Amino acid sequence: MKKMDLSKARVLTGVKPTEAPHVGNYIGAIRPAIELAAQAAESYLFIADYHALNIIRDAKELKDYTYLVAASWLALGLDPSRTVFYRQSDIPEIFEITTILSAVTPKGLMNRAHAYKAATDKNKEAGKTGNDVDLGINMGLYTYPILMAADILAPRGTVVPVGKDQIQHVEMTRDIAGSFNHLFGDVLALPDFYVQESTGLLPGIDGQKMSKSYGNHVPVFMDSKQRRKLVMKIVTDSKQPDEPKDPDDSIIYQLYCHFATDAEKAEMRRGFEEGGMGYGDAKKLLFEAIERDLEEPSKLYNELLADRPKIDKWLEEGAEKARETAQKTLHDMRHVIGLS
Amino acid sequence: MKKMDLSKARVLTGVKPTEAPHVGNYIGAIRPAIELAAQAAESYLFIADYHALNIIRDAKELKDYTYLVAASWLALGLDPSRTVFYRQSDIPEIFEITTILSAVTPKGLMNRAHAYKAATDKNKEAGKTGNDVDLGINMGLYTYPILMAADILAPRGTVVPVGKDQIQHVEMTRDIAGSFNHLFGDVLALPDFYVQESTGLLPGIDGQKMSKSYGNHVPVFMDSKQRRKLVMKIVTDSKQPDEPKDPDDSIIYQLYCHFATDAEKAEMRRGFEEGGMGYGDAKKLLFEAIERDLEEPSKLYNELLADRPKIDKWLEEGAEKARETAQKTLHDMRHVIGLS
Repeated sequence: MKKMDLSKARVLTGVKPTEAPHVGNYIGAIRPAIELAAQAAESYLFIADYHALNIIRDAKELKDYTYLVAASWLALGLDPSRTVFYRQSDIPEIFEITTILSAVTPKGLMNRAHAYKAATDKNKEAGKTGNDVDLGINMGLYTYPILMAADILAPRGTVVPVGKDQIQHVEMTRDIAGSFNHLFGDVLALPDFYVQESTGLLPGIDGQKMSKSYGNHVPVFMDSKQRRKLVMKIVTDSKQPDEPKDPDDSIIYQLYCHFATDAEKAEMRRGFEEGGMGYGDAKKLLFEAIERDLEEPSKLYNELLADRPKIDKWLEEGAEKARETAQKTLHDMRHVIGLS
Repeated sequence: MKKMDLSKARVLTGVKPTEAPHVGNYIGAIRPAIELAAQAAESYLFIADYHALNIIRDAKELKDYTYLVAASWLALGLDPSRTVFYRQSDIPEIFEITTILSAVTPKGLMNRAHAYKAATDKNKEAGKTGNDVDLGINMGLYTYPILMAADILAPRGTVVPVGKDQIQHVEMTRDIAGSFNHLFGDVLALPDFYVQESTGLLPGIDGQKMSKSYGNHVPVFMDSKQRRKLVMKIVTDSKQPDEPKDPDDSIIYQLYCHFATDAEKAEMRRGFEEGGMGYGDAKKLLFEAIERDLEEPSKLYNELLADRPKIDKWLEEGAEKARETAQKTLHDMRHVIGLS
């Protein structure tokens, strides 16, 4: 795809605080997002706590995950003096904008949303028919593309980095904003999506895509001893140390590539190809490379988690900035619909 | 139904600013609501402008109807020093509460809402199937029971006066609030509905139920000459003045009952039954009784419409009061879900 000019972009990303990031999230999403933020003219990153509410029904859990996710991104390099960093729930304008957008969103559009379709497909597979295909689906899940549109449109994000499966979110935002503009005049800026060059699927310790739901993930922040144990559990074949191996077939090597220097990568590659690099040694090298990469972030992460008021301060400063724009957006929308 | 004790009730009513009230609205809804407000410990009345947005796509129209409806209620006796009178759109907490409630509202509940079912039934009758039964239906219409729940729950309305066809709104509000309380603790007060004793269906000038959509309505506020013309158009049979007539069969008499004194009613009744009361004379009496009832309100209505800042002042004072409670409600909800 064509390169996007980010020199005038307001790049916007939302993160749902529903789980602790694992190495797959870090390499596939967090690191590229932070790199992108550095290239963009402006960057906004928010914690999508009201999206999390569809899943998390426990106050302490939601609060803990919010700080955990905030601390993770900050520790991994998010610079709150450059990126406007805030909680979705601190921008009340988003919810009024959601109400306005609902009035111009065709219901048929929501019926096509991936997450909703996946949920009804599951019910259909379980033999449900008629209205029962909606069993267990709440309206937060069904309407989340409207809330997401408001998330993007309120602070006037112009570029939204996405994985391929999330392109639909931005397309729906464009559809909804287009529908509003068509009815009331050109008030909303239509955002573009930006598919980041794929880092490839990061394997978990069993070789499948790394995912918390597969239980094959390596958390970003964890005790070193436990991380070593996890790395040592990586599944391999039974080749002996001196046998030649195909590095591109090795989970160890694939993970190593994201943490090692070019020289280190070349060395492990050679060791695998020529023989002489055993899996045990390779795992040890991988563990050390991860440790090196995450040593500083881990320290910072623990410091931040122990200092919630510091995180709050940054989030509040970010919210103040994001609200300025959101207030303008809402003001303009209210004006053209007749509520000003 | 059993009499409800209103001495501790906070009675709450919403009015959608989508049309000018006609005499049927006045007798069937506005007058009883104003009487009820006088009996209740507290009363809240709001202009549901975001519900109107599902229908009105023109800024001037929405604004004009808002003032028109506000001026109508005030002119007909709503006392803004007793009733907390405000615009829905001035209470931003309502929209955040809507977002929260969405996360606990089963989609199946929305599928059963009367307005949505009526809209899909219409599409089905037109031969639509599958996803096409949702054609032309916007998400504002589909989700309006959630917004309505927030309208009621935010200012903690305890009693909602309804027509029989609106009982479902309050039941859904109870379901949604119950679902929230079940998940997060007893924060929301479940409202009761209150079916007002029916005044009977008020006939329009053709004898069908008075309704703008039938074109048989008599607007509450209109030029006297035009009102006289409308009243004179009331459909009658061809009985001569001296023939006896059944007053209970007469549209004129039915309307007269709502505007005349007991003595006047008895007189027209006798005139009809004994003969001697012609339709022309009866229409003249009806017109005069309506004129007498609406003379003062009409003057006030015109004064108010010419003084929008005065209406704004009342609505802003009401909003300030309603927001106090709405802020508390939102604060309590945020606390138990983990956003405080």
